[in-house]
Formats: sequence, structure tokens, C-alpha cells
Amino acid sequence: MSSTTTTMKAVHYEKPFQVSVREVSLPNIEHPDDAIIKVTTAAICGSDLHMYQGRTAAEAGLIFGHENMGIISEIGSGVTLLKKGDRVVLPFNVADGRCLNCEEGNTAFCTGVNPGFAGGGRHSTIASRPLTNLMPSAYGYVAMGPYAGGQAQYLRVPFADFNALPLPPGTAHEASFALLADIFPTGWHGLTLSNFRPGEAVAVFGAGPVGLMAAYSAFLRGASKIFVVDKVPERLAAAKKIAGCIPVDFSAGEDAVDIIIRQNDGKMVDRSIDAVGYQAVGSGKEAGEVPNVVLEQCIKVTRPTGGIGVPGLYVPSDPGAVDEKSSQGMMLMSFGKLFEKGLTIGTGQCNVKKYNRYLRDMIISGRADPSFVVSHEIDIDEAPKAYEKFDKRIEGYTKVLIHPNGPL
Amino acid sequence: MSSTTTTMKAVHYEKPFQVSVREVSLPNIEHPDDAIIKVTTAAICGSDLHMYQGRTAAEAGLIFGHENMGIISEIGSGVTLLKKGDRVVLPFNVADGRCLNCEEGNTAFCTGVNPGFAGGGRHSTIASRPLTNLMPSAYGYVAMGPYAGGQAQYLRVPFADFNALPLPPGTAHEASFALLADIFPTGWHGLTLSNFRPGEAVAVFGAGPVGLMAAYSAFLRGASKIFVVDKVPERLAAAKKIAGCIPVDFSAGEDAVDIIIRQNDGKMVDRSIDAVGYQAVGSGKEAGEVPNVVLEQCIKVTRPTGGIGVPGLYVPSDPGAVDEKSSQGMMLMSFGKLFEKGLTIGTGQCNVKKYNRYLRDMIISGRADPSFVVSHEIDIDEAPKAYEKFDKRIEGYTKVLIHPNGPL
Amino acid sequence: MSSTTTTMKAVHYEKPFQVSVREVSLPNIEHPDDAIIKVTTAAICGSDLHMYQGRTAAEAGLIFGHENMGIISEIGSGVTLLKKGDRVVLPFNVADGRCLNCEEGNTAFCTGVNPGFAGGGRHSTIASRPLTNLMPSAYGYVAMGPYAGGQAQYLRVPFADFNALPLPPGTAHEASFALLADIFPTGWHGLTLSNFRPGEAVAVFGAGPVGLMAAYSAFLRGASKIFVVDKVPERLAAAKKIAGCIPVDFSAGEDAVDIIIRQNDGKMVDRSIDAVGYQAVGSGKEAGEVPNVVLEQCIKVTRPTGGIGVPGLYVPSDPGAVDEKSSQGMMLMSFGKLFEKGLTIGTGQCNVKKYNRYLRDMIISGRADPSFVVSHEIDIDEAPKAYEKFDKRIEGYTKVLIHPNGPL
Amino acid sequence: MSSTTTTMKAVHYEKPFQVSVREVSLPNIEHPDDAIIKVTTAAICGSDLHMYQGRTAAEAGLIFGHENMGIISEIGSGVTLLKKGDRVVLPFNVADGRCLNCEEGNTAFCTGVNPGFAGGGRHSTIASRPLTNLMPSAYGYVAMGPYAGGQAQYLRVPFADFNALPLPPGTAHEASFALLADIFPTGWHGLTLSNFRPGEAVAVFGAGPVGLMAAYSAFLRGASKIFVVDKVPERLAAAKKIAGCIPVDFSAGEDAVDIIIRQNDGKMVDRSIDAVGYQAVGSGKEAGEVPNVVLEQCIKVTRPTGGIGVPGLYVPSDPGAVDEKSSQGMMLMSFGKLFEKGLTIGTGQCNVKKYNRYLRDMIISGRADPSFVVSHEIDIDEAPKAYEKFDKRIEGYTKVLIHPNGPL
Repeated sequence: MSSTTTTMKAVHYEKPFQVSVREVSLPNIEHPDDAIIKVTTAAICGSDLHMYQGRTAAEAGLIFGHENMGIISEIGSGVTLLKKGDRVVLPFNVADGRCLNCEEGNTAFCTGVNPGFAGGGRHSTIASRPLTNLMPSAYGYVAMGPYAGGQAQYLRVPFADFNALPLPPGTAHEASFALLADIFPTGWHGLTLSNFRPGEAVAVFGAGPVGLMAAYSAFLRGASKIFVVDKVPERLAAAKKIAGCIPVDFSAGEDAVDIIIRQNDGKMVDRSIDAVGYQAVGSGKEAGEVPNVVLEQCIKVTRPTGGIGVPGLYVPSDPGAVDEKSSQGMMLMSFGKLFEKGLTIGTGQCNVKKYNRYLRDMIISGRADPSFVVSHEIDIDEAPKAYEKFDKRIEGYTKVLIHPNGPL
Repeated sequence: MSSTTTTMKAVHYEKPFQVSVREVSLPNIEHPDDAIIKVTTAAICGSDLHMYQGRTAAEAGLIFGHENMGIISEIGSGVTLLKKGDRVVLPFNVADGRCLNCEEGNTAFCTGVNPGFAGGGRHSTIASRPLTNLMPSAYGYVAMGPYAGGQAQYLRVPFADFNALPLPPGTAHEASFALLADIFPTGWHGLTLSNFRPGEAVAVFGAGPVGLMAAYSAFLRGASKIFVVDKVPERLAAAKKIAGCIPVDFSAGEDAVDIIIRQNDGKMVDRSIDAVGYQAVGSGKEAGEVPNVVLEQCIKVTRPTGGIGVPGLYVPSDPGAVDEKSSQGMMLMSFGKLFEKGLTIGTGQCNVKKYNRYLRDMIISGRADPSFVVSHEIDIDEAPKAYEKFDKRIEGYTKVLIHPNGPL
Repeated sequence: MSSTTTTMKAVHYEKPFQVSVREVSLPNIEHPDDAIIKVTTAAICGSDLHMYQGRTAAEAGLIFGHENMGIISEIGSGVTLLKKGDRVVLPFNVADGRCLNCEEGNTAFCTGVNPGFAGGGRHSTIASRPLTNLMPSAYGYVAMGPYAGGQAQYLRVPFADFNALPLPPGTAHEASFALLADIFPTGWHGLTLSNFRPGEAVAVFGAGPVGLMAAYSAFLRGASKIFVVDKVPERLAAAKKIAGCIPVDFSAGEDAVDIIIRQNDGKMVDRSIDAVGYQAVGSGKEAGEVPNVVLEQCIKVTRPTGGIGVPGLYVPSDPGAVDEKSSQGMMLMSFGKLFEKGLTIGTGQCNVKKYNRYLRDMIISGRADPSFVVSHEIDIDEAPKAYEKFDKRIEGYTKVLIHPNGPL
Repeated sequence: MSSTTTTMKAVHYEKPFQVSVREVSLPNIEHPDDAIIKVTTAAICGSDLHMYQGRTAAEAGLIFGHENMGIISEIGSGVTLLKKGDRVVLPFNVADGRCLNCEEGNTAFCTGVNPGFAGGGRHSTIASRPLTNLMPSAYGYVAMGPYAGGQAQYLRVPFADFNALPLPPGTAHEASFALLADIFPTGWHGLTLSNFRPGEAVAVFGAGPVGLMAAYSAFLRGASKIFVVDKVPERLAAAKKIAGCIPVDFSAGEDAVDIIIRQNDGKMVDRSIDAVGYQAVGSGKEAGEVPNVVLEQCIKVTRPTGGIGVPGLYVPSDPGAVDEKSSQGMMLMSFGKLFEKGLTIGTGQCNVKKYNRYLRDMIISGRADPSFVVSHEIDIDEAPKAYEKFDKRIEGYTKVLIHPNGPL
């Protein structure tokens, strides 16, 4: 950024099914604890497509991108740990590091960074537990706070010392490190939500990026068996890349639960992970959306006293849902069966900071390399085409990394 | 038991709304690890009423009673720890102490004691995790294994060394110790299922014996605030006996969630306990059964990142349910809201042995005295009348202790 | 503080056995995340006496006081949660809320606030785990960072949003809240370090303020039995104020372990707490310092598979120690016995922020009232005399609260 | 075993440095819950050498062998889960499955199986926590109860349903399964004792079988870095077989702590494991026994807030120790440093049953193969020579498996 430059390129939302790359104003330090990074890599996430498809309230001008990493280019006067030139990766959650949830590690539930929502914003002296619901915050996402996304040349990072995870200088492991912003920790989180213990057998529903990362986490943490359920051939093929992982293809119509139990010597699994969420589809090639299908399968396939982890997104309001109850985020669940088996359920967005330091160290030492899920690395000018192809699921577009300041 | 006696008195199920006290055969040692106890106290449980009311498949002749304590009168050749004359209390769960679930402390999910159900009975060499669902076992309960109940003068105790909890000799604390068989540990378990930590605020739905014990456990374990929700005046009065407990009466029609949040300075609570189960009723005096109402309230009243514990019974099949889905144990749940708040749910029958040793020690030292919930102590001959009055909820019958061999 | 005032009263260290109250400069905002509080209460801690007695490297001019609370009078530009007028209590640890230890809740091991020590100060990009040892930080303590103490009218609070715990406005519970700065959480922490579970029996060694708070915490969290060991009559009397607490007086020469096991029906306890530390003294009235005596007693009195919590201070270097090895912080331990019993040991300074929010809520609701340990409340001008009497342990001086801006 | 045979071959202790293979009486069912196994594999353990070398009170006639597996050949009348022909592996601990420690999973501390020691044997009604110390039990070990060892053709298994872990029929994975009796779970346990979390860096002191299994467990459970310290070339070479494991050779005299920190980018590790125990030796080729050296290194090399796991044996009484304090199991420890760093210590024999089911499943699925540590498989008649060579550490004898009924 030369001293005279005042604009940068950014992925600019135009209207449903259209983004463009435009020149926008450079971000500024707005608070003493802010920093600015020069973005080296920003990934496109499946959840960006919700906005792209016009199914949200996103307005023209929103800059996308919540999976971001780069080099510190400027720091505020309150920053004490970071310095210019540091290479960092940012959790998709924006968190203040000083509210009751952050101080207990629940950074996905920060109460201080999304002031538009009740419960966010300034605490009253003693109202330390919010009255009503909070909305988590993120970079570049509609309704998740006033934070621009990182699919741009520069990005403002609030509470930078708290949010930025330091990385070794240079360009090594760039793709793997970029996945620390969201999907690697989110998959890992899903496993944790299930109360997984090493040696156990795990079933992961969904072989998208999060499901694959959940399965990969199960491998890294010592699962005895890992089943991964999907019906898309490319996704099942990706699951096969994980050592010991058993793909379960339900496209022929047989219930995934039956397939798993048969392949598991007649036994249920110890833990199951719902990495699909509310847009689950039923068995069979023609099946439409059946919001509760994966949760019901988790209840069936998990052994008594086992656990279910739900990193897949469920929402309290979904205007495009298949029926009225679903549109209010309500679902029919076999709660009697769940109780009879004494199962636990863990849910929620990933507190990225709880895990990213450890996952980073596994990448540095060579113990982990999650970059096998990356399908494309592109320049920012290619972003509009990449969105189009990713949305159509063509040409193998599954996980795209944008390098907004050019190749490394 | 003189050497010539071969029969004993027992509470004998006759038909819906009728039990009698009959002479039946004395129990025998059937396995080397069995013991026989002379019953000093056997409590009547609310779940006995399900059978009493004819809403189950219980057949005439079933001896009721799963909350039992007494004195060892005979031991099998395999018993190594107990001896004649020992005073003991028995968990309502029958467990073998040697299956995969028992060895991890999950005695409510023993796979070895209910052979009529798939998954129970003898293990195959390696089928260490049951294929299909197990049914927990208990004394004196329909479909829960071939074990007579303890509302009788003598009782056979399988796997006696494992199941029997030793008590100090004598008759002190008899009423409190009797509650170690079920409701005190079950209430304690409910709190544990919610992932409660000391200092937190708790809402307990239901002020029946289990709800009261959950609230009392919250007091003993250092809750900062305890709300107990009911609409029956006697139950709310009982809740008031627990130090610091705040009764919440929803009989006037206001939603209990609103009352709690208002009384909690506008904040949600950290943990909620569903001590009601599938027969929950809606707000207002006229309200009928609304199976999901308490779970929905738990989701609403619990703060983001908090937890819900469900010791209240939910069943996978309920012929008397208000609608078809409920009859299959399915319920509408606000899963989108649950996910947004990142809540956990823990469910299932209580593993009594996980807690009863510690609760016993609290009773012995004077730290805990749960006997405040006991309403009546009777002779076995009074049992038929007690069932009738308890069923009608008249004359203050809430928790009845039978002394089948006479007063202590 | 009128706009023209530039000085305030503060407890000023002069030389061994002498402090005075002097006018010193008012503190200033030095970093955007700082705040200034007008101190309402600052407690004198037993560890202040180490400096008072001249056994440290403390230099004249040091302002004492690490147990502080007050009203926010000024905030820096980076402060987002607090506002002027808020009533707050401060953990004795100064912590930055953004280093690797803080973000996992280990605020007593903050690596960012004691730059004079290796491992502290600015992180290098990746040196996220310090090479050498860090020194924890605190207000008003020699070698624990450049932070003035709070036994003064005003106090600078670094990283104020993170460090300050909000309290209800007004003056209620002032004495109890003041104890949230150190001894209540520290006693609670000791219990946690022992891996305590409710229902267990606990032995606490030392009935000073921390030992009393550990015993009180055991009561609040549901211990079945609590033994508190000391030989000072006033301290044993204080222990008796805690419901169910059994004082153990070893002044007559009998070993405390033998007394406890005899009073515990011949059994060892589940958990033991060393609230004494390195200045332990042997049995008998004449006994001198025996640094390992309490740890050895903990090993003896704790049952196999139990745990030992050590909140009592041990130091790596003690020039005044009784022998050379002790002066290096080394002690003889019965490690063979420890191993045979499979015990755990947990150690270290208290991470006050892990607990203070919950303890605050217990005070507000009336569940806890730790103020029974407070012996005196004084004006700041009385501080020099209070130090003298506290040091001599006369006139019942055990826990003194200073109100530097006058009575509330 | 033909119906007329009444004797079997067994490894028979004669005198220091001499064992023989003799015909001894076949074992019998002595209690209804007993079973007899035909031993397929029994491993020689390093701790067998203590007896072999005459450093214990073992008397002539003791049959060695506590790492045993085989086929059920006879069951008692109380056995409910096992049947003849089942293939099983036995934890080295003998446990009754019904005492207070067993029911919490602490089978290494069973109070019911070593009646010669105070605290063992029959419980009194309420003495549920032993007064004095217990001695764990094992097969074929001096002072560890009246149980013959399994280096013989047949073995009596007390409380067989509880102790025997079922295995798949056949002979697959025999060497790996044999390691489930002791060293694989013991290494795994060491890691657990350190409070290890996936992604952390670990230092293991000692590359004997237990140290190697601890390092292998760290690999399986997702350690980011694993350092293994030894000075024996063969052992360091074995450590290299574990993916990602970094051998640390201290034979040249440099302190292992310095080497590790240098190779770990100047940082300490998160967790350290003492897999050496009380017979530790100092640095340098000539160094003699220095009992506290490894514990001191663990304290130095572990980062503040980290943990130390001690699976290596320490004993309360060691007649052959280098000095008097050591002979009483006492050691000098840098407790001041330990406290300053806020470290935890976990100790004790492995509760094999807590882990062996999960490790078995990892072996069956191919996720784990610990058999790389096995150096020799022999017939029982070769046992005397194998003891001699193993004792002299010649010809690569490190882990020997005996097949007492011939090759599989």
C-alpha cells in the first residue's frame, strides 16, 4: 500500500447471483486495539453462497469473506502484542476478549461486538448475562456486525491482539493456515461437541468441508473407526483421502444408519456428528429437503450413553423452509428414543480460538495437513467466476482460496 | 424369617386401580452373587402409578417396589463383601457390574440384566456394544427384567456386592437413606446432566419429588439462585423449604420463563432442569398435556452456552399420547434456537451408583437431609389405601415409605 | 477528586517494619485500555507482611495493596464495556486478556504484563509459549510488575475491561466483595486444585484467611466432612463458624493426620488442601519451620486415588530458609508413597477471573457471605498502626479492610 | 487339556538369576466367578526382572507372568458373560469389580483382592474407604495377592466377567492384543495423567516399552510434537519408528531439557511423562542412580500451567536405594518451581480396564499396531534363556512373548 493509495480491490456484492471486484476505501484504525492486515489469503465459504443466492438480507456493497489471513500492516495505539509484519490468521468470529463469554473461551458468543442485536454492545454494570439472544459476529456477513469481509486487499481487525493468531513468518503452509479461520476448527469442534474420546467409533454426516474436517479431526485424535456419509461422489472420494475413513454412500436409497451398523459388525457407533445442518436432504436421488433427517439418523446410529455433536448450522428463522414449523427453526425429534438411550447433544458455532493455536502447531510440526480439501487458488479478479462455478458445483469447485494481493 | 416360614407379605398388583397385600413365596438365592434382604423400607414412586392406573402391560401378580432398603438375611456363595446383618440400600437399577456400560459407571444402561430385550443378556464374544436398544432394568417394574419388587418383606438382590450400598448399622436416617434408591440421586443426576458448575443460577421445572431433589442438589452444590416451577400449591410450598429456593407459580397463566427472567434481574439462567418429562402440561389452570412445553421453556430460559439437564422421563412409545407423533416419542423442538445459543442437552435414567455413596456420606455427616419430601410412613397392610390416596393426590400423599416388616 | 487535586493519600513503604501514609501523585491513564478507580476498599494481605518485614527486595516508596475495589473515575479511549461510576472489584493478578495463558483462563500466568521478566512483555510472532519462567503480576507487590498498589485513594487498572469485575451499584456487601480480589477465589481454587467432587471429605491445613476460605468453599460446594487444621486458638475458633467444619488442633503434639483419621471413623479423606505453604511449622508448641511438613501430611491423610490441592505459597528461592535446599525451593517428598496411592497434585496461584464472577453472584443472592473473616475496617490514616498490630498478631488483627476515601 | 492331565508347564522361580520350567498342578475354579484360561501368550515384563534378580521377597515356586491372554477353558457357576472358547486378554491388575475403587474405574486400587494387606479383603459394613494403604494386586507377582502368573499353560482368572476383555476369535493381532495387558494401556495412562490435550507438545522420559507406548499414544491422540529421551541407542532407534517422534539422546552429557527446548524453538513443552521411575540415572555415560533426576527434568521442561504424568514406578520402600531417604521413597523436589509454574502431577499404576476396550478397538480397525516393540516370540521351554538374555540386555531382548501352549 503506497502512501498515496486510498483504495483497494474488494469482492463487492451486487445482487443475487452477482458479485464484482471493485475499488473501495481502505480500512482505517477505528479503535486503539484495532489492526489492519494486508490479506494474503481469504477463502470462500459455503455460507457465502447463502448471501450470493439472495436468500438473506445482504445489501449491495457488502464485502464478503470471513476466512482471512495476512500480514499486519498497521496497529492501533492499544495493541501490545502484535507488530507490523507479523503474519496472522483470524477466526471468523469477531470477539472482544473481555466479555463474560470470551473470558470463558466462548468467543463465538461474544456479547460485545454486535451492538445492533439485543444483548450485544455495552454492558450495563451488572447485566453480565444477556437478557435476550445474541447474534454472533463475523467478518463480511449480513447481520453479524459492522465488519467488512476479507475478500479484499486489506482488512480491519478489531481487538487485534485477542483475535489474531500469530503464524511463522514466510509463506509456508499458507493453505492449511487459511483453514484455521473456520473449517478446520469447526470440524474439530463438532467432534468435541459429541464428547468424543480416543478409541471410539464415529459417524460423520456430510462430507462437505466441515464434515471432512470433522472426520480428519477424528483421525488425528485417535478414533478407532470413522464413517463419513454423503451421496455426492466427489465428496465421498475426498473422504477416502483420510486414512482409515469409511465412506458411506446413501444415494442408492438404503438408510445410512443401516449401512453403518452393518459395516460396524452390527454395532452402533459411540459418537455421531451432524455436519449438514438444516438443509439436510432425504435418502434417494430425488429426495428433497428433510430438515430433521440427519438428527434422527444421529439418534438412531449412536449407542446408548453416547453423544451427538452438531456443528452443522440450524437457524431459528428460515423463510425458505419447506414448511411453517421449519421456517421457525422447529423440528420433530425422537426425544423419547434420545432419552431412552441417555444421549447427549452439543451444539453451536465454533469458538475458533479454543482450538486454533493447537491446530496451528500440528500444521507446523507436520502432524496435520488439512489442505487436501482446497480445490482452487485464485487471484481476486477471478472471484466473480469462482462464485458462479462454486454455486453451480461445477468443475470441482469445493474450496477456493483467493489471494487478493496476488500469488504468494 | 423363621426356618419354617415359606411365604411373606407383598404388595400384589391385581388390576387397574387395585393392589392387595398377599402372601407370596419367599425369594431364593438363584445365582451365587445373589443376596436376600429383609426389607425395612420400600418407597412408593410416582412411576408405580403408571402401572397402578393400568396404563402399562403389567399383569396381575407383579410385586411393586423399586426404592428398597433393608438388612442382608442370606448371601450366595459368590458374595465376597457383604455379610448377613449388613444394612444396605439398593439402586432402583439392577446392574451386573461387569458389562461395558457398568464398568464405565453407566449402570442405568446395564446390558446384562434384561435378557428379554435385544441387546441384553449374554454377550457374544466381541459384540460389546449392543446392536439395538436396551431396556434398563429395575425391581418390580413391568418390562424391566424378571425382578420382583421390594414392597414385600424380603427381596432378592442380584449381583449383590455390586448393587448394595452399605449403610451404618441401626435405624438412624432411615427415611433419608431410602431416598438414595432413586429420587435423591436422580435429582442430583439431573443437575449433573445440565453441566452445572457451582455459583450458577438454575431453573428446575417440576416440584415433584425429583424436581425437589434437583433443587436441593443445586443448593448443596452451591447454586447462586434456584428457581422451581410448578403450579400445585403444596409442591411450591415444599420447594420453599429448600434454603434460597425461589418458587415460580405459573398457575396464573404467565409463562414461567418470563417470571424467572424478571426475577433474575432480566437475565436468563445458566442451567435448566426438566424434571417433568413427557406428561408436561401447558400454562393456565385448564391446560392439557403439551409434551414439548417444558423442553421449549428450557431452551428459552437458558443463557447462550448454558446447558439443559433432562432427568424427567421421555419414552419412545406412549399409546396414551395426545397425538400420533407424541405416541412415537417425537416432539417439535426449537432446534434452531438451541443451536443459535450453543446449548447442550443431557438426558437419561440416573446411574444411581455414580452418586449414592457420596450422598450417603452427606446424610451421615448431617450435611444433607432429603427426608423433608416424605409425607407418610406406613405398614405394608396400609399400602392399598396409600396407593389409592396417592393416585388421587389427596390428604397430602406425595412420598410414602412402607415398612413391610413393621415400624423400625 | 476535584479537578485541581493532583495528589492522593497512599500507604507508602518506608523501611522494614515501617509504612507511612503520604501524599503521592495521582495515577494517570497510560494506555487506552486503562481505567482509574477511586478506591472504596483495599484489604491488607498476609503476604504484604513479607514486604513489611523487610524480607523482600521492596524499596521505599512502593505503594502496597493487591486486594482492591472501587468506583471507575476515568476510562481510556479503548475501554468498551466499563463506564464512569461503575463499581468494580479487581483480581490481585494483573492480566492482559490477550496472551495464550489469559485466553485459556490462566490469568495468574499472564505473559504480557511483567516485562522485566523473561517470558513477559511483547511476544515474538510465534514464541507463544515462553522459553523461561514467567513471574506473575500483581498490584503493589515487589517484582510483580510496575503496578502501584490500591491502599491509596486512586488506582490505575490496566486492561480494565478484562480485569474489572462489575458489581451492583451502592455499598451493599462491600466487605464480601473486597474478598473477591484474592482470598475467597484463592480458597475456592485450592479446592478445585484437589479435584474435589461434592460429597467428598476434605482436610484443609491452615486456618488463616485462605484456609478458612477453602473450608468455606468446601461447605458451599457440598463436602460431606471438612477438617481444618491449625494450632492457633483464634483461627480454630474462626473455623468453627463454618457450618459442619471440624477444627483439628495439633498444638498438643499429636499428629493432625492421626486426629483426622480417628475422627473420620478410621478412614482417610478424599481431598486435602495445603493452605499453609513453605513456612509450615512442625507439631508441638516449640516446633520451628519444617517446610515439607504439610505436604507430607497431605500425602498421608489422602486416600488412594484422591487429590491434593496446593494454594499455599511455595517459592523457588527463599533466602531466609532453614537450610540450603529449602532456600532453593527444594523439599523432601514421600514420592514413593504418593505414587503408590495414585494421588494427584495441583498447584499454583489462583486465576481469580475463573471464579470471581460466580462467587460474586453467590454473594449477591445471599448464598455466600465470606465476610466473617474480616476483623477490622479502618481509615487509611490508621494503616501504619494496623500493619504493626497485624504483624504482631495482636488485638485480633487477622483481616483488615482499609477505606482510603473514608467510610462508605 | 485332556481329562486325565493334572499338571501343566509353568515358569517356576528357583532363586536369584534362575527360573526353570516345571510341571505344576493345574489351576482350579475356586470361586463361582472364576474362569480358567488356556494361555496363548504371556509376555515377560521388565518388572519381572526385579524378582528374577532377587531384589524382592519372592520365594521359590512363584509362577511369573502378569501380561496374559488366552482362551476360556472353564467357567464357574457365577460367570454370566463369558463362555468356553472365548478369546480374552487380562489386565495385569486383579480386581473384583465391586469395591468402591473398582466401581469408579480405579481397578488398580481394588480393595477386595489382596487380603494380606490392611485395607484389602472383606469390607466392614461401612468402612468404604480404607484406613491404611492398600497394595494393588496382580498375577504372578510377589506381595500382590495369592494369584499365580500366566507364564504357564493355564491360568485361573478371578472375577472373570469383570477382568477378561473379549477379543475376536482366531489368532489375528495376537502380539498387539497381548500388549493390552499392561504396557499399551500403561503408556496411554501416563499421557492421561499429564492432562494431555490433542495438539500439545509432549516430552517422554524413557524409551523402554512403557515410554515407547506413551509416545505412541501421544502420536495416536494428536500430539503436535513428541520428544523421547533415552541414552540407549536401540531404544532411541525404536522411538524413531513412531511417526513424528523426535529422539533425544542425552548420552553425550548435555541435559535433555536443554536439548528439547532448543529443538522446540526455544519453548518448553506442554506435558511431560516420567516413564522411568525411581531407578533413574544421571546424565553422562558413567552416571549412577539419581532417583529424582527425571522428575526434576519434568518440572524444568514443562511450561507454566502444564502437567506431568508419572506412570514410571516409584516405591515407598526400596532397600537397594542409593541413600537412606531414597530407601524410604523420599526425594528432593523443586516444589517451589513446580508451584511457581502452576503445574499438576498425576501418578499411579494404570487402571487397565479404563482404556483396554478402546485400545483393542483401535487394534482391530487397524488404527493402532503397538507390536513394533516386541522383540522375540518363544516357546515356554525357552523362557529360562530368555530371562537370562533379557536381564543382560543382550541380543536385542526387549519385549518377549511366550506362547506356553506352542506357536499359534
